[in-house]
Amino acid sequence: MALQPVLINGEWRQSKSDGSFQAVNPTEKQKMPQEFPVSSLEEVEEALQAGYEAAAALRSMPVGKIADFLEQYASNIDARTDELVEIAFQETALPREPRLRSGELPRTTNQLRQAAAAVRDRSWCLATIDTGVNIRSKYGPLNGPVAVFGPNNFPYAFNSAAGGDFAAAIAAGNPVIAKANTSHPVTTRIFAEAAFEAVQRAGLPRAMVQLLYRIKADVGLKFVSHPLIGATGFTGSRWAGLQLKEAADKGGKPIYLEMSSINPVYVLPGAIEERGDAIAQEFFASCTLGAGQFCTNPGLTVVLAGDSSEQFLARAASLFGSARPGTLLGRRAPQDLAAAVEVLKKNGAEVVVGGEIAEGPGYAFQNTILRVSGDMFIENPHALQTEAFGAVSLMVFARDVEQMKAVTRNFEGNLTGCIYSDTRGSDDALYAQIEPELRPKVGRLLNDKMPTGVAVTPAMNHGGPYPATGHPGFTAVGIPASLLRFGALYSYDNVRQDRLPPELRDQNPTGQMWRLIDRVWTQKDVDSQARAGAH
Amino acid sequence: MALQPVLINGEWRQSKSDGSFQAVNPTEKQKMPQEFPVSSLEEVEEALQAGYEAAAALRSMPVGKIADFLEQYASNIDARTDELVEIAFQETALPREPRLRSGELPRTTNQLRQAAAAVRDRSWCLATIDTGVNIRSKYGPLNGPVAVFGPNNFPYAFNSAAGGDFAAAIAAGNPVIAKANTSHPVTTRIFAEAAFEAVQRAGLPRAMVQLLYRIKADVGLKFVSHPLIGATGFTGSRWAGLQLKEAADKGGKPIYLEMSSINPVYVLPGAIEERGDAIAQEFFASCTLGAGQFCTNPGLTVVLAGDSSEQFLARAASLFGSARPGTLLGRRAPQDLAAAVEVLKKNGAEVVVGGEIAEGPGYAFQNTILRVSGDMFIENPHALQTEAFGAVSLMVFARDVEQMKAVTRNFEGNLTGCIYSDTRGSDDALYAQIEPELRPKVGRLLNDKMPTGVAVTPAMNHGGPYPATGHPGFTAVGIPASLLRFGALYSYDNVRQDRLPPELRDQNPTGQMWRLIDRVWTQKDVDSQARAGAH
Repeated sequence: MALQPVLINGEWRQSKSDGSFQAVNPTEKQKMPQEFPVSSLEEVEEALQAGYEAAAALRSMPVGKIADFLEQYASNIDARTDELVEIAFQETALPREPRLRSGELPRTTNQLRQAAAAVRDRSWCLATIDTGVNIRSKYGPLNGPVAVFGPNNFPYAFNSAAGGDFAAAIAAGNPVIAKANTSHPVTTRIFAEAAFEAVQRAGLPRAMVQLLYRIKADVGLKFVSHPLIGATGFTGSRWAGLQLKEAADKGGKPIYLEMSSINPVYVLPGAIEERGDAIAQEFFASCTLGAGQFCTNPGLTVVLAGDSSEQFLARAASLFGSARPGTLLGRRAPQDLAAAVEVLKKNGAEVVVGGEIAEGPGYAFQNTILRVSGDMFIENPHALQTEAFGAVSLMVFARDVEQMKAVTRNFEGNLTGCIYSDTRGSDDALYAQIEPELRPKVGRLLNDKMPTGVAVTPAMNHGGPYPATGHPGFTAVGIPASLLRFGALYSYDNVRQDRLPPELRDQNPTGQMWRLIDRVWTQKDVDSQARAGAH
Repeated sequence: MALQPVLINGEWRQSKSDGSFQAVNPTEKQKMPQEFPVSSLEEVEEALQAGYEAAAALRSMPVGKIADFLEQYASNIDARTDELVEIAFQETALPREPRLRSGELPRTTNQLRQAAAAVRDRSWCLATIDTGVNIRSKYGPLNGPVAVFGPNNFPYAFNSAAGGDFAAAIAAGNPVIAKANTSHPVTTRIFAEAAFEAVQRAGLPRAMVQLLYRIKADVGLKFVSHPLIGATGFTGSRWAGLQLKEAADKGGKPIYLEMSSINPVYVLPGAIEERGDAIAQEFFASCTLGAGQFCTNPGLTVVLAGDSSEQFLARAASLFGSARPGTLLGRRAPQDLAAAVEVLKKNGAEVVVGGEIAEGPGYAFQNTILRVSGDMFIENPHALQTEAFGAVSLMVFARDVEQMKAVTRNFEGNLTGCIYSDTRGSDDALYAQIEPELRPKVGRLLNDKMPTGVAVTPAMNHGGPYPATGHPGFTAVGIPASLLRFGALYSYDNVRQDRLPPELRDQNPTGQMWRLIDRVWTQKDVDSQARAGAH
């Protein structure tokens, strides 16, 4: 069988492959028919060279073309919705409705359109102008293409050829080399087709979007640290992410990783008393969403030991136990979950409900809750933070407030942390003790809300301290902030007006772009600003 | 002789030392009388523990105290000016006037006062509020103290206990553990004394500022990667910086490094014709400033081969040759420069003037210009970019425009790049060819100006692509941008109003802070903003 072609430098061509692979239909535990290549280092280097030249060509093009591309691409995706939903369902087992068609795909095109709007608006680049000394700065594209490694759990919204990192890297002015997630290569190929059509229509460099399906581990290390690469965006396992990070770091190349998170949820006693059943329901819904395969899945709950918390657990356990397990993304998933549960058990956790691989036509694992005492948690904090990527959650019963704080102090960096408290104020004193411990450990702090919804909005932080990500200052979701990951800071000192990029000239390039001129955020031109200041 | 005490957790105390050292007076080639300790890992860990607790305590304090501290500290420095100038002159041989007293010290207190103003203003934290979804974000302090490693060449402005990284880390809300540069420990001790007095007066945690003088290499690696550290700011050699970077990266700890740069200067033919002598004078002045020991020292010049360029070189060489060499910072400096010149010569460069260690009472090296052909440069681009940290500059003679571009394409990342062109437009076509190659390789691009002045202004970028620094998105100079290095992004999702930090509540905390509310930069409250939007 012929291998599926890769997209290199504007050509769908046979891969210089090192091997091949097939994805699996998780619902049927059957191999998918298409066979995909494993790209060689030579092929990666061809993509890098083409991407590097595209990055150079792009610097002299008007940014409107990039916005045109993003909008056209979103329309192309809309036009191929049926095809995308059908194949993504086959490749991932995620429900066609509402998840794929009404949820994730519109979110993905929305991200692309928001990115296009950010490109046209230009405010994302934080243009800063100091008129007195005539020094001006802005963020601009990197010197080379961005590699994007997408995860298995969001075939659209985090897809390497269509998702958040892709949109951010392109909007910041960089070509992208997409490395498909091997669990959904056909989905990714359709995206790349739709993207490449839009690239051509917008008149962007042919190597603006390139696609590889798989590379061996050693090739990956060379890829992310290559002299021609600009940066890397990675979403996936901590194990793979840390290997890529070490290579990229050594090469002096930026890499942004979203790796792992157990997303602690505190349910304080007043909240349990006030609305424990409702919270148990929210917890169940959040934990089992997408079969629990969310980076923001609530994998750990902290409660104060006592009767009410026992009742809260019982209520949650009954919901978990009575729901049919969701189908998992890949063939290794059930075993991986079983192994994670084993680690938790070995370190003192007890299974309350579930805990076993679920038999049936698809890959599945029982909806699972484990429990552990605060004492035990503090004894083995590292092992008891093992991420179980599925509908598996550990409930920690803290003896008292001090122990609840101690549990928190033992947390690694996480994407999110939630605190549920009552509305009458009885939890306020406890909140005030827990929040300062939790705040610096998480990227996003929530009140009275589960973490699984990640709105694409400027103030979102889908990031957090290591090892949730590689750097606590950046977010993978949220436009325009996510673009800054793929920018470099460029300052212009005494550069003549006609040689400045449009964003830094005296005249505001759009009439609406926000710029920090002499420490004032304004949409005005430099001149009119100075005149305004003179009055 | 008793060792000088270290400052740990609010106490000047005898060090748990691993050894000792003395600084050297470079003017006289004599050891300074004071003996300083080499701190042990145990002592570093005590400082980290105290700093970590200080970081936690700081989170609940009003930021006004931090601003009070920075201002009081600046005043304390002013009061000790005479002492600081005298000792820094003894330790570094940098001229008392104008460099130390009228230049660097006022710049340093200005930085501290700008940092204080940024703290009071609060706009630096990029507060972002999305009212529709009630998600709010801002940058806030890290979860642990910041280590600052200062360089030898700026005893004040980049001092680990008083300079730009110190001011930025403190202003962002972090305690600092200063690791003195061993060339000027007494200067640093005086700063730390002045700082600690201000810490106490402002009522900040006692471990807000701590001071160590020296640590062994292996202890340094453990320091920057320690679980309790927030981040590291380092200015110094590439050799030391890359070792620290590898350790910090492996530990998942942010590290910001300013390591090395040769700062290419292009002098285009029209500029030489129009004002070659004046530019040669500027070049000479910039290259010999501070005996050439500036991170932005113009270490490489690119010209088009031809008679005018030969005359330009001759003019520069005569200036270099007739000036007395400056005194270098340390005893190794002359040999280091000799070794760098040797590398350049071995790889095809010829000495035009200077090239030898200068005899005399102090450490010195002759003012030196070397030349090399573009052909030769392209053959050995790596070796010919060896940084010679002193008044040593290499002039590259490119055969033609294509070769000038090829030379540029071979540059590593640099802090700065300058292009001199004529004012009549004859260089414009050449500028247009060179600039796109140079732009992505440098943090700051200058026109008609040497790179050695680094204004402390918001649009400054004292940063640049690797290996000039460790990350192309950050600047070490320029407030408020430099603060972001020492911040983490914190998002608040559905968090109740009274639990939000002041910067994210509906009411603007100062009435003047800039916030991005619903994609509009404004100084208004959330309510009045919403009301304004409703009209």
